[in-house]
Amino acid sequence: MKAVYPGSFDPLTNGHLDIIKRAARLFDPLIVAVLGNSAKNTLFSVEERIELLKEATKDIRKIEITTFDGLLVDFMHNNKAEIAIRGMRALSDFDYEFQMALTNKGLYDRMETVFLVSKGEYTYISSSLVKEITQLGGDVSNMAPENVVKALWKKLKN
Amino acid sequence: MKAVYPGSFDPLTNGHLDIIKRAARLFDPLIVAVLGNSAKNTLFSVEERIELLKEATKDIRKIEITTFDGLLVDFMHNNKAEIAIRGMRALSDFDYEFQMALTNKGLYDRMETVFLVSKGEYTYISSSLVKEITQLGGDVSNMAPENVVKALWKKLKN
Amino acid sequence: MKAVYPGSFDPLTNGHLDIIKRAARLFDPLIVAVLGNSAKNTLFSVEERIELLKEATKDIRKIEITTFDGLLVDFMHNNKAEIAIRGMRALSDFDYEFQMALTNKGLYDRMETVFLVSKGEYTYISSSLVKEITQLGGDVSNMAPENVVKALWKKLKN
Amino acid sequence: MKAVYPGSFDPLTNGHLDIIKRAARLFDPLIVAVLGNSAKNTLFSVEERIELLKEATKDIRKIEITTFDGLLVDFMHNNKAEIAIRGMRALSDFDYEFQMALTNKGLYDRMETVFLVSKGEYTYISSSLVKEITQLGGDVSNMAPENVVKALWKKLKN
Amino acid sequence: MKAVYPGSFDPLTNGHLDIIKRAARLFDPLIVAVLGNSAKNTLFSVEERIELLKEATKDIRKIEITTFDGLLVDFMHNNKAEIAIRGMRALSDFDYEFQMALTNKGLYDRMETVFLVSKGEYTYISSSLVKEITQLGGDVSNMAPENVVKALWKKLKN
Amino acid sequence: MKAVYPGSFDPLTNGHLDIIKRAARLFDPLIVAVLGNSAKNTLFSVEERIELLKEATKDIRKIEITTFDGLLVDFMHNNKAEIAIRGMRALSDFDYEFQMALTNKGLYDRMETVFLVSKGEYTYISSSLVKEITQLGGDVSNMAPENVVKALWKKLKN
Repeated sequence: MKAVYPGSFDPLTNGHLDIIKRAARLFDPLIVAVLGNSAKNTLFSVEERIELLKEATKDIRKIEITTFDGLLVDFMHNNKAEIAIRGMRALSDFDYEFQMALTNKGLYDRMETVFLVSKGEYTYISSSLVKEITQLGGDVSNMAPENVVKALWKKLKN
Repeated sequence: MKAVYPGSFDPLTNGHLDIIKRAARLFDPLIVAVLGNSAKNTLFSVEERIELLKEATKDIRKIEITTFDGLLVDFMHNNKAEIAIRGMRALSDFDYEFQMALTNKGLYDRMETVFLVSKGEYTYISSSLVKEITQLGGDVSNMAPENVVKALWKKLKN
Repeated sequence: MKAVYPGSFDPLTNGHLDIIKRAARLFDPLIVAVLGNSAKNTLFSVEERIELLKEATKDIRKIEITTFDGLLVDFMHNNKAEIAIRGMRALSDFDYEFQMALTNKGLYDRMETVFLVSKGEYTYISSSLVKEITQLGGDVSNMAPENVVKALWKKLKN
Repeated sequence: MKAVYPGSFDPLTNGHLDIIKRAARLFDPLIVAVLGNSAKNTLFSVEERIELLKEATKDIRKIEITTFDGLLVDFMHNNKAEIAIRGMRALSDFDYEFQMALTNKGLYDRMETVFLVSKGEYTYISSSLVKEITQLGGDVSNMAPENVVKALWKKLKN
Repeated sequence: MKAVYPGSFDPLTNGHLDIIKRAARLFDPLIVAVLGNSAKNTLFSVEERIELLKEATKDIRKIEITTFDGLLVDFMHNNKAEIAIRGMRALSDFDYEFQMALTNKGLYDRMETVFLVSKGEYTYISSSLVKEITQLGGDVSNMAPENVVKALWKKLKN
Repeated sequence: MKAVYPGSFDPLTNGHLDIIKRAARLFDPLIVAVLGNSAKNTLFSVEERIELLKEATKDIRKIEITTFDGLLVDFMHNNKAEIAIRGMRALSDFDYEFQMALTNKGLYDRMETVFLVSKGEYTYISSSLVKEITQLGGDVSNMAPENVVKALWKKLKN
């Protein structure tokens, strides 16, 4: 069954990658959908984020990486997908994720949001933390894939 | 007994309207007080927000709609009101609402903040969500009163 | 407007007393309703709990102290009361209180549960904590009214 | 793909039934597995709980109802199932469900726990609440399937 | 500076052991104080729990293992200790631990409760989970020290 | 043992001051480290914040006040400090503080983050609340030290 894993992926972390690997075992194909129209400024462009995702997931089968604008429910409807994947890390994710899952179900009744629990060691990783630590000169090599770490250094230090 | 329901109402949602209807049964009069001096940019002006509230609540008796600047406790003191109404939707509201209730009681000991629990179907509605979905082309007609939905489309699409 | 403050009050704490005093300013009369049919074993009988409440609240006007069995909504319906008062102390109260408020509204649509926030210094007080500390020989004189502290010592130490 | 929805179902509620219907759309077959060895006393026997589930789900295709003892991971391993379904209603479920999901993954690495979010109107329903309200004479006909409501009345009132 | 790490330790887990090792680096001596008067039934006697602790911590310097009855604040006062250590694992610990820390400070103003955060991999371990999994035949060898695992098997299987 | 209490202190509140006093009893010296490179705009400059801290803590012994840029772990490593102090006020602090504590431990394994629980009366105080209330003309004299209150009035009103 087809599923979509939406997100900003600015940039991809090891936590995202863990969810992608596990979701790809459950659903076929898994569409990783990079949010293009985010109001917030991103460090990496959509194209860069897609490229980083492609490199880091090249050994995972039955996966597609793309981008979307507008409402997730419209993207899913247009792609005949009814399952959205979300990772849940910690309590602070809870209310927002619940709100989005219930809102999306209100907008598109056939849509299901499926939550996977992040492994303990990924609980404290987020894209914004990875960016902040890199910016302050810290080592994030155990928080993000190798290609992302390199891209971060290139982006933030040059 | 007089009560005040303060908020940004940018814009009014069905969740707010539910709280207004229920609070108006408990207190007389109920003053709906639109926050005017908010630092954050609002989509609707104070006048527009008051107008939308007036239209949507025209069948509710014993209700007054006004605006205030400065501290809520000063507004309440000046209006000889001692009861503030707040809706509580979800866990993420909890700490902020507690902080404000305790702070306000510290600033004005006679003030009481009274919380009503939002109905299940309104739990996931917020003004910012309503604005975001409209902006992305989604349908919010079950999240806000009809006049607000129209005003949102006019504001965001023109 | 009539309101009901239901609870086990086994025994009354300073936190309960604070809510009673504040609710009695907002509603008239305030019925303090001691839950009689609790499945859990109580330290004090219903009669003892009512007596302790009466002594501790003898200076508060417009207050009635009684007991009820069965569903709160039935008690309220029979007493033509539509407002239930609850104190909210901490996060761990949140889900249970929400569940009860929404369930009661589902059983009796005119019922409103109104939450007051416990003052900071009462946040950590609960009946069970008061009983446990007394049992271990600790001093609870700043956690419960004087008559309750005496009754606790009499009950637990003899 | 095969999935297991484990639980006590003492008794089945409308919240459980909603999760069953939605999970049955995502996975094939869906095994509803009634926990048999629970330490806690149950109101209904395993056989009664299975019977109630069978009646209430007779129109749902690709569903199997069974019981299990011992560890969920052993049951899943023996049944060559790798996906467990859980409904998440509210914040208070969060820590327990996370603990179980992470523990089960630690015991059986291929196992995935997949969470679906309960709809707003089912947020406040639980088996224990349904039993408690029935016991106190309340109406639970909008909280549980019709056959369960009948069985509750028969069990609790005779 | 002297510190006390109080708990039931029924039985010791790897999460407890991690806190002990880390607290022993910060404070000197560290007194691990096994709660003797717990109302709840324990699987291991106080003597057994102390013995398991002693074996598992024999390589940690500056540590004392003892038991206490009654209030923690009395034990601390009698031992001229003012620092209590607690591990915090997850949200559900939060309210209880806060309540105890604030209550203890109310009972003994010089007392400080110091919280250490459990490492991610220990977040989901608790004594009761370790007992339950062993009882159901599961493997807890990565959740508790080797001597505890052996003692659990001996206790639960014979 | 040396400890570091890092923060923005923009400005110092009574809640911060309480943590400083208590931490100074536990650790020697206590370095209060003002975050200099914060991305967010601050009301007070680093120099002003240090000055306000020095005045308000002049009677506390064994305390040093300084500033740092970059990662906290680098500052601690350079200062041969392994203990960071944090106050925890409310649930909403929980996830962020856990994330930082676990991240810092990942970056510097010898580092320990030690949490003290804010007293009940300081639970609702934060630097941003103090600034906001002052800006709206409210009285914060029971939320911040006297010298901070004066500096706030000077800064915000002139």
